[in-house]
Amino acid sequence: MKKIPVGILAATGIVGQRFIQLLADHPWFEITAVAASERSAGKRYADAVHWLLPTPIPERVADMTVVESRPPLDCALVFSALPSDVAREVEPAFAAAGYVVSSNASAYRQEPDVPLLIPEVNPDHLGLLPSQQKSRGWDHGCLVTNPNCSTITLVMALKPLVDAFGVEQVIVTTMQATSGAGYPGVPSLDVIDNVLPHTDGEEPKMEWEPLKLLGSLNGVEITLADLPISAHCHRVAVWDGHTEAVSVKLGRRATADELRQVLHDFRGLPQELGLPSAPERPLSVPAAENRPQPRLDRDAAGGMATAVGRIRPCPILDWKLLVVGHNTVRGAAGAAILNAELMKAQGYL
Amino acid sequence: MKKIPVGILAATGIVGQRFIQLLADHPWFEITAVAASERSAGKRYADAVHWLLPTPIPERVADMTVVESRPPLDCALVFSALPSDVAREVEPAFAAAGYVVSSNASAYRQEPDVPLLIPEVNPDHLGLLPSQQKSRGWDHGCLVTNPNCSTITLVMALKPLVDAFGVEQVIVTTMQATSGAGYPGVPSLDVIDNVLPHTDGEEPKMEWEPLKLLGSLNGVEITLADLPISAHCHRVAVWDGHTEAVSVKLGRRATADELRQVLHDFRGLPQELGLPSAPERPLSVPAAENRPQPRLDRDAAGGMATAVGRIRPCPILDWKLLVVGHNTVRGAAGAAILNAELMKAQGYL
Amino acid sequence: MKKIPVGILAATGIVGQRFIQLLADHPWFEITAVAASERSAGKRYADAVHWLLPTPIPERVADMTVVESRPPLDCALVFSALPSDVAREVEPAFAAAGYVVSSNASAYRQEPDVPLLIPEVNPDHLGLLPSQQKSRGWDHGCLVTNPNCSTITLVMALKPLVDAFGVEQVIVTTMQATSGAGYPGVPSLDVIDNVLPHTDGEEPKMEWEPLKLLGSLNGVEITLADLPISAHCHRVAVWDGHTEAVSVKLGRRATADELRQVLHDFRGLPQELGLPSAPERPLSVPAAENRPQPRLDRDAAGGMATAVGRIRPCPILDWKLLVVGHNTVRGAAGAAILNAELMKAQGYL
Amino acid sequence: MKKIPVGILAATGIVGQRFIQLLADHPWFEITAVAASERSAGKRYADAVHWLLPTPIPERVADMTVVESRPPLDCALVFSALPSDVAREVEPAFAAAGYVVSSNASAYRQEPDVPLLIPEVNPDHLGLLPSQQKSRGWDHGCLVTNPNCSTITLVMALKPLVDAFGVEQVIVTTMQATSGAGYPGVPSLDVIDNVLPHTDGEEPKMEWEPLKLLGSLNGVEITLADLPISAHCHRVAVWDGHTEAVSVKLGRRATADELRQVLHDFRGLPQELGLPSAPERPLSVPAAENRPQPRLDRDAAGGMATAVGRIRPCPILDWKLLVVGHNTVRGAAGAAILNAELMKAQGYL
Repeated sequence: MKKIPVGILAATGIVGQRFIQLLADHPWFEITAVAASERSAGKRYADAVHWLLPTPIPERVADMTVVESRPPLDCALVFSALPSDVAREVEPAFAAAGYVVSSNASAYRQEPDVPLLIPEVNPDHLGLLPSQQKSRGWDHGCLVTNPNCSTITLVMALKPLVDAFGVEQVIVTTMQATSGAGYPGVPSLDVIDNVLPHTDGEEPKMEWEPLKLLGSLNGVEITLADLPISAHCHRVAVWDGHTEAVSVKLGRRATADELRQVLHDFRGLPQELGLPSAPERPLSVPAAENRPQPRLDRDAAGGMATAVGRIRPCPILDWKLLVVGHNTVRGAAGAAILNAELMKAQGYL
Repeated sequence: MKKIPVGILAATGIVGQRFIQLLADHPWFEITAVAASERSAGKRYADAVHWLLPTPIPERVADMTVVESRPPLDCALVFSALPSDVAREVEPAFAAAGYVVSSNASAYRQEPDVPLLIPEVNPDHLGLLPSQQKSRGWDHGCLVTNPNCSTITLVMALKPLVDAFGVEQVIVTTMQATSGAGYPGVPSLDVIDNVLPHTDGEEPKMEWEPLKLLGSLNGVEITLADLPISAHCHRVAVWDGHTEAVSVKLGRRATADELRQVLHDFRGLPQELGLPSAPERPLSVPAAENRPQPRLDRDAAGGMATAVGRIRPCPILDWKLLVVGHNTVRGAAGAAILNAELMKAQGYL
Repeated sequence: MKKIPVGILAATGIVGQRFIQLLADHPWFEITAVAASERSAGKRYADAVHWLLPTPIPERVADMTVVESRPPLDCALVFSALPSDVAREVEPAFAAAGYVVSSNASAYRQEPDVPLLIPEVNPDHLGLLPSQQKSRGWDHGCLVTNPNCSTITLVMALKPLVDAFGVEQVIVTTMQATSGAGYPGVPSLDVIDNVLPHTDGEEPKMEWEPLKLLGSLNGVEITLADLPISAHCHRVAVWDGHTEAVSVKLGRRATADELRQVLHDFRGLPQELGLPSAPERPLSVPAAENRPQPRLDRDAAGGMATAVGRIRPCPILDWKLLVVGHNTVRGAAGAAILNAELMKAQGYL
Repeated sequence: MKKIPVGILAATGIVGQRFIQLLADHPWFEITAVAASERSAGKRYADAVHWLLPTPIPERVADMTVVESRPPLDCALVFSALPSDVAREVEPAFAAAGYVVSSNASAYRQEPDVPLLIPEVNPDHLGLLPSQQKSRGWDHGCLVTNPNCSTITLVMALKPLVDAFGVEQVIVTTMQATSGAGYPGVPSLDVIDNVLPHTDGEEPKMEWEPLKLLGSLNGVEITLADLPISAHCHRVAVWDGHTEAVSVKLGRRATADELRQVLHDFRGLPQELGLPSAPERPLSVPAAENRPQPRLDRDAAGGMATAVGRIRPCPILDWKLLVVGHNTVRGAAGAAILNAELMKAQGYL
């Protein structure tokens, strides 16, 4: 199979670096363009980037010349790690120019005609694309987004509970890694010997995005789920891996063993289709009472599995859980790649 | 005034060190005995202790000889930082021998005749002491306990809300400092680049202790408050200062401004009596939306004030708050000292 | 005594905040102006600053209006925490306008007619000022600088050894706090679970500045000391307090006890004059073999004392030492304040 | 080829866990026994261990029953991660019983007839074994040790310099990961917002072990190298990876480029023999001026390569270098495995 040529927007940022790392040996996609800001354009990628990952820059990419983040780009699909304000301008320009855009940016997540997608959760929301293209006058191009990193971690754990028992209320407190804020991002002075309240819009995202993800597609629009969520968000001195303490109220009675079973057995369309980046099991359910922990569980299935543990009764809602997910893999670059894989498998690409 | 001679049990531990630091220039109490395990007994205090506080060992104490933690001790009042299993044996022995025992240990917190005390919250619970002495056959001795560090931080913030609005439900997620576990305590491998679930009994304590603290004294017993609490507890890489994300359901409608006012205006008996360790304001209510933070707020009023901020609506219960308290000052040694000051002021000592 | 009105340049930065904290109750100086960049000018100080210290903003300063960092300013003395490039323009403008400038910036440290001053080390270098004023045509104004934070920590420990034994060679490896880089400064991603080589000019500063500090004033110029120094510099996940591992070759044989004695006995002109910010003992010499440590020793004498310990033979040079100093107090704001106190005491102000 | 059955002594500790992780798919060795203290004996390995690595326990090992650390053991070769005092008794017992012992313990490193081995550095020291067996009366058994983790990191970087230029003096300052101290090991209170002097024997090890490693085998004994080394050792808040700042005096003049070339070109016998755990290049020489860093460089070649960078002139000795090595892989378990591979390749096993 000839590989699909892909471009990375904001390729020098921390999520851009994850895209490059995860796509290095991808069976379907091949990086043919790396784009960044004007300041980096024209430089060799290895010279333009402040590389922050323990694995080396893939050699082929190291020598590529960075171009600016605007069409045309030598590729068919673009992965966008753009900041939201830039994404707002640039992503539709790419879609209008005929590119498939798989975006990690927040700019268009709330647009009614833009799928907000987790392939294990709401793959049918890709059904928005024909009307998206029609209404926006895009011929071949289209735009798909993945949720915020803290949302993905939460919703991965909620989805099987929604399906099996119904979920009526969620209170979640996050202890988030600093890599989610990019580089330079969170100052060391804010997290050494400290916990930093996360005050820039994270909580509203966590309270709204799951409603769309768990909503239902009715013809050309999504009916939001009816699910009140209360989010308390914080940063802690962790490099990668968001930890989320969750209380849930279920739609019906269940036992801890039933929850554990349902979480453990969870599979979605990516598993059924055998998508390249799909973890065999989307959820790991470690048995030890002191798990999950970000350092120990973030890298499960290459960072694509979410860990759920400490299932115990909640005196207010029904159950308490602890969830850990890798924020820049499953919560960002890996999410957008899995979205693109689903689009490819379903003929949108 | 002649100072009251006091002894410290488990004086070489981290809470023992805080007792010594806080009592160095106390206007009412004077350290006359430092007690520890058999291994340390006979040594000079400065040689027996692995001192971990940035202020130096007070000179007078440095040269004292450590004795074993059992009566008789050259003092009238003992502050106990003993581990729970040892406290179970040793504390009643001191009370029986005529000493007033102000304990930070968990061993007797649940005993019906033992006050579990925060002077700003339930000073009247000292009223249990006469029947305690009578039923246990103690002449002059008695035993008073302070709550767990994470409980104190929570209940300090809840008390004014209980009084003004009623509190019906509480969900709390803690991000706790490692000093609470003593030394050596939490291994560095558990908190570097990590969050550690707190699995050894912290959650049940946080869910039960507030019921006694907020309960009412009826003659010779406490009627527990009717207040379901759900606690999620974790350790993070913070030296001192517990951070607690709280959702509360109130008994009646209120505005954020009303909450802020009530928290800000909160005063208790220690403030009225002008007890030496009482902070002028038990609660600080920082206005900045990114406060409180443990590094910035733990030391308010020498660690005796609790900080409450980020007051915002909760979509499930009524309000979200963020609370920070110093776990080894207001949450341990300072708590026991304030308890003793109240006892002194009220004639129990 | 009427207090001398002082202004702070770059008052919103982390060193600016230390100036404000340290000057809050100063017996000689009173803050009458806070200056910062154009962006902050016109705002209330408390609104303009991202305050990062555990003690609150002194009330008087909180309500002051920030002005721009250029003359005229309502004061007689300015403390400068400006970045080097800005300092290069602004500091001489203040001196020319008649202000005494006590600067923490590196811009003019190497100028032959500008004292690079540590009052315990080379107070006589103030003797450069008359010729400075003359040659630069400054009437009343003048400019004095303090060294880099890592240099001060090193030279405080070296000075008594220089005086007592002579010092011929120094190899120093630093493990520096991140507060020295200001805010936002060092990204958390660079120091969580990591050590960051310090590559932006720190090593040359540490290798050159001590030569001027330990040099001798000959009429109107400083003859640099003949002292080869080799510096290896790094950042670690520490908030405040630089730790420096030092090997020294002395001019003559000595015993560990002699070194310890000489360090312990060290006093300088600030101690003799009783300057307000002078620590009673400039050096603390903790006896424990695992001291100094930044968390335990940085705050000695309010951050103005430097700790020296672990004195042991070096198989290559003569002795190994471990030194800890507070980088934003003794290493920055406190240094500039002590310099100004010396100037006042000696009639330059 | 039939695999050689191997046992792990102290299999539940952090180095024991690394042995199990690294041997999971080893082409020559197969774990057939896991041994630990009496307390763990009889338990399933997965139940006995507090597993601390991000990769899961290999399934086959998880279900093995832990036995006590004494012969007989169902294997031919034992890897020892025993603490030194236990190793002193147990390791000779295994050797006497006919087992080949590859030890990470320090107990026998200084014995004249026991090879202290780094296969790239002094493979010929295995020549001590015949006389070892003869003098100790061991038939088939023998004992080989690897150096301390901080020593290995240093000597890997020194060896090519020794060969190419001669090395006459070394001053090294370490910033060591806490995993080297095992679990629970270094308390979090000692490294949060702190640097901890390493006071328990690390410095003497670093100053002596290289002399044996770089010494020459003369018949049946090693003549120690004549190389004064001065070590300053510290712990920092890093999980894995020792960082070492090194100044070296060479035997002859060289340029930075020559050093870089010699380090980059370094190969040893393991590379020549193609031993399974040998990294293709023992040394990585990152070009960026801010490298190496432990988080970015410790995992090179699966943790078996050592990174050397920041090659720059030293004003006292000749050159400054920064070295990073993985302390529990190349510095412990991986070291002992590579030693055993060399023994196998050379017919000692």
